[in-house]
Amino acid sequence: MISLLDSSLFAGLFAIDEEIAADFDDRRRVADLLEVEAALARAQAEAGVIPAAAAERIAAAAKTLDVDLAALRRSVAACGVPTIELVRQLRQACGSDAAPFVHRGATSQDIVDTASLLALRRAVAKIKVKLKDTAAALIALADGHRQTVMAGRTHGMHAAPIVFGLKAANWLAPFSRHWQRLAELEPRLFVVQLGGAAGTLAALGDRGLAVAAALARELALGPAVPWHTQRDAIVEFGGWLALVAASFGKIGQDVILLAQTDVGEAAESGDGSRGGSSTMPHKANQIASEMMVAAARAVAPLVAALQSAGIRSTSAPRTAGSSSGCWCRRWWR
Amino acid sequence: MISLLDSSLFAGLFAIDEEIAADFDDRRRVADLLEVEAALARAQAEAGVIPAAAAERIAAAAKTLDVDLAALRRSVAACGVPTIELVRQLRQACGSDAAPFVHRGATSQDIVDTASLLALRRAVAKIKVKLKDTAAALIALADGHRQTVMAGRTHGMHAAPIVFGLKAANWLAPFSRHWQRLAELEPRLFVVQLGGAAGTLAALGDRGLAVAAALARELALGPAVPWHTQRDAIVEFGGWLALVAASFGKIGQDVILLAQTDVGEAAESGDGSRGGSSTMPHKANQIASEMMVAAARAVAPLVAALQSAGIRSTSAPRTAGSSSGCWCRRWWR
Amino acid sequence: MISLLDSSLFAGLFAIDEEIAADFDDRRRVADLLEVEAALARAQAEAGVIPAAAAERIAAAAKTLDVDLAALRRSVAACGVPTIELVRQLRQACGSDAAPFVHRGATSQDIVDTASLLALRRAVAKIKVKLKDTAAALIALADGHRQTVMAGRTHGMHAAPIVFGLKAANWLAPFSRHWQRLAELEPRLFVVQLGGAAGTLAALGDRGLAVAAALARELALGPAVPWHTQRDAIVEFGGWLALVAASFGKIGQDVILLAQTDVGEAAESGDGSRGGSSTMPHKANQIASEMMVAAARAVAPLVAALQSAGIRSTSAPRTAGSSSGCWCRRWWR
Amino acid sequence: MISLLDSSLFAGLFAIDEEIAADFDDRRRVADLLEVEAALARAQAEAGVIPAAAAERIAAAAKTLDVDLAALRRSVAACGVPTIELVRQLRQACGSDAAPFVHRGATSQDIVDTASLLALRRAVAKIKVKLKDTAAALIALADGHRQTVMAGRTHGMHAAPIVFGLKAANWLAPFSRHWQRLAELEPRLFVVQLGGAAGTLAALGDRGLAVAAALARELALGPAVPWHTQRDAIVEFGGWLALVAASFGKIGQDVILLAQTDVGEAAESGDGSRGGSSTMPHKANQIASEMMVAAARAVAPLVAALQSAGIRSTSAPRTAGSSSGCWCRRWWR
Repeated sequence: MISLLDSSLFAGLFAIDEEIAADFDDRRRVADLLEVEAALARAQAEAGVIPAAAAERIAAAAKTLDVDLAALRRSVAACGVPTIELVRQLRQACGSDAAPFVHRGATSQDIVDTASLLALRRAVAKIKVKLKDTAAALIALADGHRQTVMAGRTHGMHAAPIVFGLKAANWLAPFSRHWQRLAELEPRLFVVQLGGAAGTLAALGDRGLAVAAALARELALGPAVPWHTQRDAIVEFGGWLALVAASFGKIGQDVILLAQTDVGEAAESGDGSRGGSSTMPHKANQIASEMMVAAARAVAPLVAALQSAGIRSTSAPRTAGSSSGCWCRRWWR
Repeated sequence: MISLLDSSLFAGLFAIDEEIAADFDDRRRVADLLEVEAALARAQAEAGVIPAAAAERIAAAAKTLDVDLAALRRSVAACGVPTIELVRQLRQACGSDAAPFVHRGATSQDIVDTASLLALRRAVAKIKVKLKDTAAALIALADGHRQTVMAGRTHGMHAAPIVFGLKAANWLAPFSRHWQRLAELEPRLFVVQLGGAAGTLAALGDRGLAVAAALARELALGPAVPWHTQRDAIVEFGGWLALVAASFGKIGQDVILLAQTDVGEAAESGDGSRGGSSTMPHKANQIASEMMVAAARAVAPLVAALQSAGIRSTSAPRTAGSSSGCWCRRWWR
Repeated sequence: MISLLDSSLFAGLFAIDEEIAADFDDRRRVADLLEVEAALARAQAEAGVIPAAAAERIAAAAKTLDVDLAALRRSVAACGVPTIELVRQLRQACGSDAAPFVHRGATSQDIVDTASLLALRRAVAKIKVKLKDTAAALIALADGHRQTVMAGRTHGMHAAPIVFGLKAANWLAPFSRHWQRLAELEPRLFVVQLGGAAGTLAALGDRGLAVAAALARELALGPAVPWHTQRDAIVEFGGWLALVAASFGKIGQDVILLAQTDVGEAAESGDGSRGGSSTMPHKANQIASEMMVAAARAVAPLVAALQSAGIRSTSAPRTAGSSSGCWCRRWWR
Repeated sequence: MISLLDSSLFAGLFAIDEEIAADFDDRRRVADLLEVEAALARAQAEAGVIPAAAAERIAAAAKTLDVDLAALRRSVAACGVPTIELVRQLRQACGSDAAPFVHRGATSQDIVDTASLLALRRAVAKIKVKLKDTAAALIALADGHRQTVMAGRTHGMHAAPIVFGLKAANWLAPFSRHWQRLAELEPRLFVVQLGGAAGTLAALGDRGLAVAAALARELALGPAVPWHTQRDAIVEFGGWLALVAASFGKIGQDVILLAQTDVGEAAESGDGSRGGSSTMPHKANQIASEMMVAAARAVAPLVAALQSAGIRSTSAPRTAGSSSGCWCRRWWR
């Protein structure tokens, strides 16, 4: 066991979403890598870089390949990336005619980065459902408690009276902003990465940008100049997740305070089976709320780690230069 | 001296922007507080809550008040906020007729939060100019070095050749995204805060939201339900600043690596007077680049601190409840 | 999959120590909890709080109990701790005579905290072996390269010449300090936690401190006043782990820089099978060094998370009061 | 103004210790640099590296030098360190006979690092006094409230009764451990740094280690191999400061919770003038406690920043090699 999160005992406590966990499962991630290799072959056929028949063979092989995961694991341990060995297996599976056209002009990071976005996109779709459910629950709480008078408190001291419905409305407010933020960042995040060996697309000659655009279309991602060395959209998304976690943490913190024996103005709903004590059966600890606070506190420092990862050093795109310059000028008016 | 940043010796090294520092100067912040009190009075006159003559007297007094900063300092030490004493001084200055109408229905946090946005808005205007200058410089670098061939490097190893202009284009790319992000977050950030004692605007009766809207107009801020307890827009802005710092840090890191004696492919421009050594006069350390990296690394953990601050506990707005519910529903389709 | 660390594909890359991972395995942790319950019973028999025969029955049952992990999992999801259900199963297993004496006067946190130290102590023993191996390897490197002249570099610039053996000696230096620090913190870390329901040991009457001392002896832990609400020794240990990680990260960073194609003064040893590239077979990326840097960077923010966790709120020990006062006075001369 | 901490308005709130702030004042830090240069000259005279008369001239000039701070500031902006210009001024002041012997065989980092320890040592002496005062106050509280019964609370819920004196004893407990930790880390922290240009002491020939030892004696620091590139003792000290801050933060958090209107079991003592509200005169916010929590929360992420700074890259000591190897072996038995 590496962390509490992969403990089967504590899994229920942290309420890990099993479907989102499955989105990042080893088998699923390998399938994503293969999907990107297949889409790359189709994109290259579309751009006239490789024969259509080869692309079809590659796509078919990618779909049915029975991946040797143990060999992949050894490759990762040796090289840091699964792609080298996976490409080898895929080449073997699609026959000697199509083999040379597998992974053409791409580098490992192109496949890994693009495939990661497919996993993130699946997770984001599920997170959106949860956000809607959360908003619906908070709207119901706000509407249902318009007349539920309680003490307003600031600095832990009684201030003027408020109604509980408006505390719920307050909890709700940031979630509309989170929704809006997500809509804004998605076009920056879900874009293709294709740069080749040194980020220049040089191996694809003058077809580099055409292949990148076609690959984006194949995977329903946005077009983009290579961003492998400029990962601000990933950091931005991590920051967004932490903002959402903090909004849940704030709800949890409020519930804990309102549920104190001395206050008694709220409690987690449920059948009463949660939050028991080994010594004091009368207690009802606010376990779900405590976990929301714990999760928010645990996530905050990870944003700092992501931010630091933004400062790295590698290469730059060649053919993308002028177009990038033009594209940028639009923004700096 | 509390930190290197307020050392007069090291100020030049960190290139603290003196104009932005002045935006947050004590005298300027107190002037912001007074501007908000004046705008609040005018907004309340407009909404029919206080007499127009009183609003004029308050605004005039706020403009000319010779603030007793020492008294303010004592008040902050005692209560944590400068507003109580400042309101006392303002009341005294505007005469007994207008005095009761100063700070009507507001609480300290309303004034402090709203005034803080005035300071941030001034700083953001200056940051925008710097971002445009940065983009222009990077575009010139990208354009001027389309043919400057150099080794592409990944993992510190020579990969395929690239041109330096495209490394510059790569540095540029995130700045367009930062510009776009700023445009998106500004409407969330620059909004008025007015909630009164417990965030309910109760003291203003049925004129609460009208006064809040008028105050927003007076200060050219956006309208908003009270957000004092939901500070996600502040955290978002801090995250944006860190993203920008990381993009500068990445440039600095690249320059340091390219300027190594063993590499020698780039160096900070200048008159050669920077980066000297007390023992080795031949050296030219990349001091500006080192400071960019240092700043980026120092900023990252502060985002974690901001995130944690997002989990707090206080009260909720009363009259804002239903409107907030409605407003939110628009987003959750 | 929750994180890269529990990916079977990437496990080899991160070189997770399987033995240390096993120390924190669910089954092993549950066995630790049972060991503490057994030791508590023996300690209470020794202190005359429960009959010796009951203690023997409890210890025997704890050793052979076939724990229903699924029930435990449900209990954790409901209450946040595994102890309530585990105590129920243990009571059932040891028969109705001994059952009332299980977990006597203890609370969940006593068992969980004390059991956690048993797991940490096993891990620390293994970490010590690794530290000795590291030191031996660095001493050999330092000794073997006393005459290997190379360029000294500061700020990435050539400075005066050095020998490589002394770079290795430099890498070694902090590890002796880490060893010393560990020896100093162990007596603070490996101490028993026993406080009962509100941290007062009240349920054990005047035998509380005697039971706590006996429990400590049973488990070869140090004696201590209840520390459940004052977790500075845990934070200190986390900080120590991060310091060690940073020393390894520094070695990795140096190797990466020395192995650059442009520098070529060092490289990871091995059979050359590591660090390959999917496009450029001539490359030899320093994968192990990159992982050492990555680990060090990932660990640093977790220290901040631990630090924040130090600010919590609960109860205080009753009978421990005067002794604590006395004990403390010794230090404040 | 760069941060709230250097606001004259808010200075009283944060209770910045003016004496400790003065320890890090620009003028004082420059005096420290000069003290190290003087001690270096005396140490070199003692080791027979420079004439005793030159050392006396240098020490006398260092004591009376009227430093041109503006020139120093320009030098810092250009080179990142104040030493180059300071050495120039010192050479001018001590006459052409002694001038060549100023800063002999040293590099900027030697002077800056060693001087920083002089400032830290002054601050630590003051911190110790505060820790003793804190302990005395908590012991008095623990002793005075042995019979003050109150509700014990866990998870915010009433548990069994406790006495307040034992809550105070609990607050006290970590401070004895902090005192012990400080005593243990001081010998690692307060050690001389002298390495010369590339950390090898090469410019001092075979007298390098003798000069370093003499410099340490002159300044009452411990002897050490050059540690400029291995800054774990600095990180360790930062972690200790954060641990202390967390212990104060925990007290603050407990007081805030106990002082809630709904609980009312404690409040900050004082004349009642603190914690007022601009709208609700009956309130008594726990401002000092809030500041203690705020400080603890603000400090935690800075430890992560310090940790990251531990991963840097530079050179290694030459003559120190064998001695370091020997010294280390003592520990790895």
